[in-house]
Amino acid sequence: MIYNSQSPRFFIVGVGPGDPDLLTLKAVRIINLVDIIAYPYVSGGKSRARDIVTSHITKVHKELPFHLPMEINPSSAQIAYERAAEKIIKHLKSGCSIALLCEGDPFFYGSAIHIYTRVACNFMTCVVPGISSLTAGPAAAGLPLASRNDVIKILPATLDTTRLEFELENCEAAIIIKLGRHFDKVSHTIRLKRLEKRALLVSTVSHGDQHIISFDEFYRQNHTGVQPYFSMVLISMHNRVEP
Amino acid sequence: MIYNSQSPRFFIVGVGPGDPDLLTLKAVRIINLVDIIAYPYVSGGKSRARDIVTSHITKVHKELPFHLPMEINPSSAQIAYERAAEKIIKHLKSGCSIALLCEGDPFFYGSAIHIYTRVACNFMTCVVPGISSLTAGPAAAGLPLASRNDVIKILPATLDTTRLEFELENCEAAIIIKLGRHFDKVSHTIRLKRLEKRALLVSTVSHGDQHIISFDEFYRQNHTGVQPYFSMVLISMHNRVEP
Repeated sequence: MIYNSQSPRFFIVGVGPGDPDLLTLKAVRIINLVDIIAYPYVSGGKSRARDIVTSHITKVHKELPFHLPMEINPSSAQIAYERAAEKIIKHLKSGCSIALLCEGDPFFYGSAIHIYTRVACNFMTCVVPGISSLTAGPAAAGLPLASRNDVIKILPATLDTTRLEFELENCEAAIIIKLGRHFDKVSHTIRLKRLEKRALLVSTVSHGDQHIISFDEFYRQNHTGVQPYFSMVLISMHNRVEP
Repeated sequence: MIYNSQSPRFFIVGVGPGDPDLLTLKAVRIINLVDIIAYPYVSGGKSRARDIVTSHITKVHKELPFHLPMEINPSSAQIAYERAAEKIIKHLKSGCSIALLCEGDPFFYGSAIHIYTRVACNFMTCVVPGISSLTAGPAAAGLPLASRNDVIKILPATLDTTRLEFELENCEAAIIIKLGRHFDKVSHTIRLKRLEKRALLVSTVSHGDQHIISFDEFYRQNHTGVQPYFSMVLISMHNRVEP
């Protein structure tokens, strides 16, 4: 009983971090039921979200891809979201049901938020949570992240050094996300705070090219520089990390 | 290809926050394949984790329930984990495969951590991430929690007031968990920090008795006192909450 005439026809579906096996039963059920599958793609045409659900898309589905520019200036992305939202609204008005795919979980830093805020004010919307890389990372690394009274902080690598250092001084566990070109700054902070033995670098979790390494080992191998955008640092103040 | 002789025979499976539809395909596949399903139950015999997967358990499965005392003194729980781990190890040694069920996600405050640390040192262990109530809550409440440079803090309600206030002064979003008998303290902090219009109370997310209310409304209704252990407060400094 996913939807009837009184129920939502717009679904924002978290599809997890990459492994199609980490889709929820609900995500698969909704994908099977809707008329239209919407998803963002980046320059070059690749859509990580669509890749995850490929085996569930059939010829009956209509697809609604929209281009998402990966630029530092956010205004061009906002224009893309605006256009995508307009198309989605047009289809909803015509009576179609739509699933908008979102990597990971929609409301934990998901880009689908920008479409949700434009559509949900006028159309009943069902948000289906997905496995976030924030939980898939510790699971893949075998690192119990937090228990009992531990505080976990989720810190975008885009923060300035002062804030990063401040937050790391006051927590039991942290996940630093969105590394990309901010990696050297984060790496410097980890060295400064002497967290090498408590920090793991996890890249493209649950994908075929998943890579997990402790910072201690990472430094021994003299690595540096840019990391994939979909990489993160897991820090557990309680545990020495041994990937 | 979940397991063969070279692969793990011990699985810690996150089963999500309550709705059986939020199980992952991987969780279902592993439950279908293993010999033994292990899970904790509380006094009275209820096991929320088993309830979630009921429809996937067959007569072929052997069940290994273990009692988990919900007492403030953690030492009796540690004894229970020790005994459960011993039983699991005995079955693994005899060649059986086991899935240990864990509500939500295993490594985000999951009780399965205490068994993982006792078993995984000797037996290859696969941890399957589950939908955490931390992501299911915002999805159910229609509250986009964080985007771009936002810091999210996950704060157990067991923290003292000084630490709670300090952490709330320095974040863009927060989730306060494990409310239970600490609710009045948390409620007082929310009033003190004037967060009534930015905070939602979410109880037993994704269950049939799920309840979501803003603190503004909660105070108007003169509610107070103990809340279910499985309730949480969602705070978004950017958004006024309108459940």
